[in-house]
Amino acid sequence: MSKIFLFIALLPFFLLQSVFSTEISRNSAPLIGAQVIIEHGQSAQEIDALFATLQKSNMNVCRIRMFEAYMHDGNGNWNFTEFDEAFRAAERHHIKVLATLFPMVEFTNIGGFKFPDSETHLASVANYIAHVVPHFSNYKSFAGWVLMNEIGSGRAPFGKPLTDEKFAEWKSTDAVKSFDANGRPIMPFYEERFLVDYNTWYLQWLKSEVRKYDSNSHLHVNTHAIFDTYGEYNFTKWRGILDSFGGSAHASWHFGIFTRNNYHYAMAANSEILRSGAGNKPWLMTELQGGNNIWSSGNPICPTAREIEQWMWTVIGTGGKGLIFWSLNGRTAGIEAGEWALLDLQNKPTDRMEAAAKVAKVVQQHADFLSMAKVAESGVNILYTRESLWAERRAETVGATYAGRKPGAAMKSVIAFYEAFGQLGIQANIKCVDEFDFTTTDNRGKVIVLAHQIALSAEYATKLETFVKSGGLLVVEGLTGFYNQHMQLQLSVNNPFLAVLGGNLKDVKMHANQPYLRFQNLKSTLPVHWWQGTIDSKESKAISENSDGHILATVNELGHGKVIWLPSLVAIEAHEKQNFEPLMQFVSEFISPVLFENVLTFAKPYKGLLMQQLENGGKKLIVLINKSDKNQSVRFNKSPLSFISVFSEPQKVFRNTIKIQPEETLVLELSNP
Amino acid sequence: MSKIFLFIALLPFFLLQSVFSTEISRNSAPLIGAQVIIEHGQSAQEIDALFATLQKSNMNVCRIRMFEAYMHDGNGNWNFTEFDEAFRAAERHHIKVLATLFPMVEFTNIGGFKFPDSETHLASVANYIAHVVPHFSNYKSFAGWVLMNEIGSGRAPFGKPLTDEKFAEWKSTDAVKSFDANGRPIMPFYEERFLVDYNTWYLQWLKSEVRKYDSNSHLHVNTHAIFDTYGEYNFTKWRGILDSFGGSAHASWHFGIFTRNNYHYAMAANSEILRSGAGNKPWLMTELQGGNNIWSSGNPICPTAREIEQWMWTVIGTGGKGLIFWSLNGRTAGIEAGEWALLDLQNKPTDRMEAAAKVAKVVQQHADFLSMAKVAESGVNILYTRESLWAERRAETVGATYAGRKPGAAMKSVIAFYEAFGQLGIQANIKCVDEFDFTTTDNRGKVIVLAHQIALSAEYATKLETFVKSGGLLVVEGLTGFYNQHMQLQLSVNNPFLAVLGGNLKDVKMHANQPYLRFQNLKSTLPVHWWQGTIDSKESKAISENSDGHILATVNELGHGKVIWLPSLVAIEAHEKQNFEPLMQFVSEFISPVLFENVLTFAKPYKGLLMQQLENGGKKLIVLINKSDKNQSVRFNKSPLSFISVFSEPQKVFRNTIKIQPEETLVLELSNP
Amino acid sequence: MSKIFLFIALLPFFLLQSVFSTEISRNSAPLIGAQVIIEHGQSAQEIDALFATLQKSNMNVCRIRMFEAYMHDGNGNWNFTEFDEAFRAAERHHIKVLATLFPMVEFTNIGGFKFPDSETHLASVANYIAHVVPHFSNYKSFAGWVLMNEIGSGRAPFGKPLTDEKFAEWKSTDAVKSFDANGRPIMPFYEERFLVDYNTWYLQWLKSEVRKYDSNSHLHVNTHAIFDTYGEYNFTKWRGILDSFGGSAHASWHFGIFTRNNYHYAMAANSEILRSGAGNKPWLMTELQGGNNIWSSGNPICPTAREIEQWMWTVIGTGGKGLIFWSLNGRTAGIEAGEWALLDLQNKPTDRMEAAAKVAKVVQQHADFLSMAKVAESGVNILYTRESLWAERRAETVGATYAGRKPGAAMKSVIAFYEAFGQLGIQANIKCVDEFDFTTTDNRGKVIVLAHQIALSAEYATKLETFVKSGGLLVVEGLTGFYNQHMQLQLSVNNPFLAVLGGNLKDVKMHANQPYLRFQNLKSTLPVHWWQGTIDSKESKAISENSDGHILATVNELGHGKVIWLPSLVAIEAHEKQNFEPLMQFVSEFISPVLFENVLTFAKPYKGLLMQQLENGGKKLIVLINKSDKNQSVRFNKSPLSFISVFSEPQKVFRNTIKIQPEETLVLELSNP
Repeated sequence: MSKIFLFIALLPFFLLQSVFSTEISRNSAPLIGAQVIIEHGQSAQEIDALFATLQKSNMNVCRIRMFEAYMHDGNGNWNFTEFDEAFRAAERHHIKVLATLFPMVEFTNIGGFKFPDSETHLASVANYIAHVVPHFSNYKSFAGWVLMNEIGSGRAPFGKPLTDEKFAEWKSTDAVKSFDANGRPIMPFYEERFLVDYNTWYLQWLKSEVRKYDSNSHLHVNTHAIFDTYGEYNFTKWRGILDSFGGSAHASWHFGIFTRNNYHYAMAANSEILRSGAGNKPWLMTELQGGNNIWSSGNPICPTAREIEQWMWTVIGTGGKGLIFWSLNGRTAGIEAGEWALLDLQNKPTDRMEAAAKVAKVVQQHADFLSMAKVAESGVNILYTRESLWAERRAETVGATYAGRKPGAAMKSVIAFYEAFGQLGIQANIKCVDEFDFTTTDNRGKVIVLAHQIALSAEYATKLETFVKSGGLLVVEGLTGFYNQHMQLQLSVNNPFLAVLGGNLKDVKMHANQPYLRFQNLKSTLPVHWWQGTIDSKESKAISENSDGHILATVNELGHGKVIWLPSLVAIEAHEKQNFEPLMQFVSEFISPVLFENVLTFAKPYKGLLMQQLENGGKKLIVLINKSDKNQSVRFNKSPLSFISVFSEPQKVFRNTIKIQPEETLVLELSNP
Repeated sequence: MSKIFLFIALLPFFLLQSVFSTEISRNSAPLIGAQVIIEHGQSAQEIDALFATLQKSNMNVCRIRMFEAYMHDGNGNWNFTEFDEAFRAAERHHIKVLATLFPMVEFTNIGGFKFPDSETHLASVANYIAHVVPHFSNYKSFAGWVLMNEIGSGRAPFGKPLTDEKFAEWKSTDAVKSFDANGRPIMPFYEERFLVDYNTWYLQWLKSEVRKYDSNSHLHVNTHAIFDTYGEYNFTKWRGILDSFGGSAHASWHFGIFTRNNYHYAMAANSEILRSGAGNKPWLMTELQGGNNIWSSGNPICPTAREIEQWMWTVIGTGGKGLIFWSLNGRTAGIEAGEWALLDLQNKPTDRMEAAAKVAKVVQQHADFLSMAKVAESGVNILYTRESLWAERRAETVGATYAGRKPGAAMKSVIAFYEAFGQLGIQANIKCVDEFDFTTTDNRGKVIVLAHQIALSAEYATKLETFVKSGGLLVVEGLTGFYNQHMQLQLSVNNPFLAVLGGNLKDVKMHANQPYLRFQNLKSTLPVHWWQGTIDSKESKAISENSDGHILATVNELGHGKVIWLPSLVAIEAHEKQNFEPLMQFVSEFISPVLFENVLTFAKPYKGLLMQQLENGGKKLIVLINKSDKNQSVRFNKSPLSFISVFSEPQKVFRNTIKIQPEETLVLELSNP
Repeated sequence: MSKIFLFIALLPFFLLQSVFSTEISRNSAPLIGAQVIIEHGQSAQEIDALFATLQKSNMNVCRIRMFEAYMHDGNGNWNFTEFDEAFRAAERHHIKVLATLFPMVEFTNIGGFKFPDSETHLASVANYIAHVVPHFSNYKSFAGWVLMNEIGSGRAPFGKPLTDEKFAEWKSTDAVKSFDANGRPIMPFYEERFLVDYNTWYLQWLKSEVRKYDSNSHLHVNTHAIFDTYGEYNFTKWRGILDSFGGSAHASWHFGIFTRNNYHYAMAANSEILRSGAGNKPWLMTELQGGNNIWSSGNPICPTAREIEQWMWTVIGTGGKGLIFWSLNGRTAGIEAGEWALLDLQNKPTDRMEAAAKVAKVVQQHADFLSMAKVAESGVNILYTRESLWAERRAETVGATYAGRKPGAAMKSVIAFYEAFGQLGIQANIKCVDEFDFTTTDNRGKVIVLAHQIALSAEYATKLETFVKSGGLLVVEGLTGFYNQHMQLQLSVNNPFLAVLGGNLKDVKMHANQPYLRFQNLKSTLPVHWWQGTIDSKESKAISENSDGHILATVNELGHGKVIWLPSLVAIEAHEKQNFEPLMQFVSEFISPVLFENVLTFAKPYKGLLMQQLENGGKKLIVLINKSDKNQSVRFNKSPLSFISVFSEPQKVFRNTIKIQPEETLVLELSNP
């Protein structure tokens, strides 16, 4: 899909405070808004008031869930009254609408089904689309369709007729059999690979149904619970289906592997995964938690106004082209009734809404810069593989307690490195291994981290070798590559990664007492989460040994680059103990020196700090968040530097050192980047 | 059904120690006894000995489970040998028999099925009744039928043919649809409402089967686990089916939301729920734990002799017309073999039996008074709604940990207020909202407490308003009324309780740190269980505000009464922390002053104390229990007072102050009430 | 089956370091080896290297899992390449092969199925046997078949066609009905008793299939998780099917009721159960954990070299005729890939392998002695009943937490006594009650302990009486005999054990506070796990009373012996608190004095120590393990004594006192036993 500029023709009709644009493209200004809950029985006045509130709060986009449940009268006829009212009110108040297709669900279902049950059900979805799409896509306020709410289901609903039928069909054409070419049994991951394809198929099917009535509207979908569901998305394929990528990032539902004072890292990491997935497509945060929880969510909270600011700027700082709170107003039925909203139960703005409006204002003021701004690349890439999650789930022993061998360890290891980089002021990419561009021929200044990615196809052996030889630094941690993509052990006698690693894995023992890694230039030891690997070094040099002389970590010089291998569970240990200090020292010692000199980082680690950097031409915008519990004076790896604050202390000038308070979000223009 | 006076004709044949009566009516003396376990293979002598033991222990009633399993010989013929023997022995020893219908179950089933599986199974129950009822109902010792054991199942056994058939039938005539009149989806609570009706239907069916052979015997049924099952009973309908109400109140199975030193409150609260449910029918405690647990029960205990006294007097003090221990002797088969009994494994009396006999003696001595005695009403009514429990269960998020949002919070909130009142010497009613008489025109001196009753039909808005205007005090706590009876949010823009509450709910935020409520005249603050509500006051006046000026509690003067509203979870907090002091201060400050002056209460709160009051004519009998760990000198809100103890320190006279030891139960006649 | 001497004819061809024998008989020398993992795609060289490693490590036996999964080419033809290679390599390196039948399973199945699903599946197993057995049983290196891997399934796979068919068939001929002869309902334990018979049937079926092609090869099977599965084995019947008995004893999967510093007791207890089950057949430990865990196992560990020594000597010390590690090399696929092995991931020996080789060497050097050596009997027998486990499982209340009433309490009580005896240097037998020889007429010096065996058939009343009258000491602890074999209460008014016990059980109360037993000559009190029994003594004499004068323990003199009865849960308390001191004092005071004077024991209890004794003619070999955390100087109940150490301090002479370090295993020849 080419970029769309929906409203160019309409621009003269708008009276905008500053630059106002509601397109969603790589070069569009970020849209800011909230989900407006439209329900049966709302009056025109009530609906208008909601959109007026959005407008007053400097917002320019909203999402509307197109509840089929509210679109029928008692006689089985379609009745769009409240939704028509909403689209008209949106127009009046200059709000663009991303409309979410939401066919009928039962009362207790709060997020919608992810696949229809049967062909009949599928047909009823088609019928819903047939009524809803042509009716609404011509509204001036209409901006695009969210094809479904929160794609991602953990497991395909096997046992349901449509799924079983599609699975059988899929399997009949699947090339992977239970035995490999050598007759060795493999884990075919039928269910997991099917789910990836099934998600893609359903997206494509929804698109084709929409396209029957609407040939060029903007199409979007939002992932959710990304740290649990990442194994079922094929983002590179989606680039051919969607016009923009999105996600739900609700602290209370989705950030379970983070503590509350790390939610900024959670939001940033989620954003990075979407940014990478989207590739050359724009991305936005389709849902952010706007308010309070009572019954819903796994870890109920009510976000503070400060958290609202942090999350918004984090999305912007990762290059998001928009963000939409869930929600403006509360639902009035079901198990999330009265929850999540920026407005209170009387539909009056809360301090959260006031904070959001303040941020929206500043974003509008900087729309010119933000339109063309891109993330200032650090060169660091933390890669993940879907198969690692699949293998973790298949390998799980009932009742297992050690985090390192429970599902989630691979992603927690990614996050641990991400947080360690973050506290050093380095904005790392998080990419599915198939999203990384291995074709580049000069990889100086680039880093790949493979943190406990337990399943990695041998096809990456040569790709990684090429990456390293052309100047890259590869860091291989934990049990990365232990399995291939079919749960066959690789790191034994016929190790396909031997050339890259420069050695073999001897053992990866479960220790009865906490093991450690000791490095020559590291102040503290690197604590290990029970399993510590030892290396049979061939070409590589030891950089850490234990008291018995076993090698615990190596460096392998290869062409213009090198490979650091530490086959012990150190990242998961940092995550479990929430102790990132030793890992940061490791990064400072072994990784940071490789980065290009022009990469702006902190001069030393700052606990709880996050920095994100956007650049546009010669200008740089910096988002800085302090979630430690004390004031911080932040210094950088370069000087002299001069910053002018545009949020939250506008116009204030900082020279070389930035003072930032706990929970504060500072947005700064760097005058001499 | 009219009251029954079964044995008037037989009275001359009895040689009784004092007044002896075995009728069960509103004006009958309390019956005291135990379940006699009759099993195949017991000798006539063994059986006689059991009844002789009852008689020697001053008991006059028993229950017999009519195990179909023990009523067949090897050739498929009915064989009632042991049961005939038991009814004859009962007659010889002047014991009346409440016989429990108990059709065949499998070996591991200890409590019986709650619904037959199929029509065939139903027919086999009918056949069992056809053989058992006519055979036994003519015994002189026969006192009535318990239609089934422990009605109440948590969830109807969907999937079983009879249930599915009855559900389909029920649903076809059900008026509630998935959408309300305004086309908004509702939670229809089909399964929950069906279960209420299904229980009632099965009771009625059992009655009609019994009535085929026995036109006027006394009919009874016992609820169980009332704090979990209260959502499935329709007591007001049962008044038309049963002659008396009952319950099982086994500490080790049913008091899981209480700590052991609060079991007296548990027994009292259970009794209050039954008393209210029974209305103008008599009620009795059909099962009390008599002995030890090994494998059975959730929280195994062996009651002490002191607990036996406490529980017995608590039932009497709540107006119970009888109490029957489970059990006299132990079962010899299955997973509760050798458990629960007042006798030891050799069928010899334990200290528990001796304590029971002592209480039974005193009850007999006071039979005249107790026959016509009624509970001395305090005017306080804590109301509950079934829908609150249903909504809690439907709203539950998997893995939820906070007590305030887990099923049980509504009942725990009721209990917290009950315990707070109890420690002030105020005996509160606990009523299902539909059992309260809203037609009274003068409600001065009356209090209604709605504690975290999260689902409340809007139909109660006017009823409550009338109650208040006619002098009542309404206390609305927690998220009461958040939902209507169909889980639609009420406390938002269209609040049906606005007139009553005098304001609207703004927010009910989850706080990251423990919130509090501060009141002007309260020594301590009222701690809140995470969720704290703020009020948009209209007619009401703030009585508590937070530091930001948000209103946390209000009083709304309305006609001759007033409404106190504190939309924060304070009761559940008291329950979770077992800290009732702040809640008692709140009650003392805001509720106690409303009560009529003639209501006898403690002069100040006493931790662990419970007082119950019966009155008959000008006489008052007071049950006083001390489960704190120290001696207490109890003073009252009036003086001079003079008490004469009838148990456990008979004849002792107390003036104004009563000294009571830990675990002691004192029963006192108040000479100048 | 008569004993087999497979290789007598081949002996001249072997050049052995010392005595080398690969027969498995009551009088054969212990075989030592490991499972060689043979997988598709291994080269002949790779395979040869594995067997060469075995040989170099002084090993003479291996096990090979005959994976059907690796025996097919792409066209459905059988292809035994790697397995043929393995049998040939075994021959070259003088390693005998126990081959495990292992029909096709799916990828994630790591242990094999325990019963075929259907008749078709059964036929496919038969077909597998038809191809595999004749092909391999003629190899010179072939030593016998393991009929299946790890028999034992917890519960028969009801719902699967073959199981349902066999169950129906079995039930039609089963004599036990739901009611006993007196018409009283019983727990028929259909599923449990069926599983016992079904296991036996399947073993027999496998044997008959093998015998179609191979009329006299050695047949073996290994139990596993014995502390959980003991309720489903009928060892006495198996003696007619198998040539040798075996077991898997993996610390990380199977020793969950032990702490790591008690794993030697676990290995020893497991060995004792097998030894008793085998009766006059030889037994060996078919699987011992050789290496590290990652994803597999409930409690992952990597054994230390010291543990390898401990486990090996424990098996030898219990008279094991062999031990085979799981495994030599690691698997390369699935969820235990790279785990469990004595070799590292590069197939190089670890310190564990070096330790094993060292032990193997010493075993070979002492082959003459070990061939005919038998366990030196202490006279102590701890008996268990299968029905106790069945009853525990049936009686379990959902959510029960107290260990004493949860499944496992009966076995934990057995183990507690076993450990208490062990710390006194007394090697106790652990026997299923039906394995004990009750026909002996002189039982002086013998002890039977029945520790919390809650279900015991009344048929044992006279057997136990005879045992005691002929001089035996019977110790009855906990709720032993509470139920009969059909969960009918026995210890009430008609107690079949009255004559043996000399009294009746009055009560076995759950106490709110920790109860104790006090004995006259015991230093410390014996703490009770909540449930404390009181006795109505008839013929017996009280040896412990509580402050109320209730009798807590008795001794009943009966003929030439006596019975000590303490119906309180003291063993499980010792286990739960891992506090064996009081129980050891009890044993020292009441049990040890009964043993024959020539039984060698410690002079006092030593925490963490285990002693095992083999004798052959006048010679005694002693295995001594110290798993306490300090050096111990062990004294014995006799002196003078002179020991010469053969492992781990060879040639060292000890007089009267043995010094042993933490984790050390000493093997000693006693010169004057």
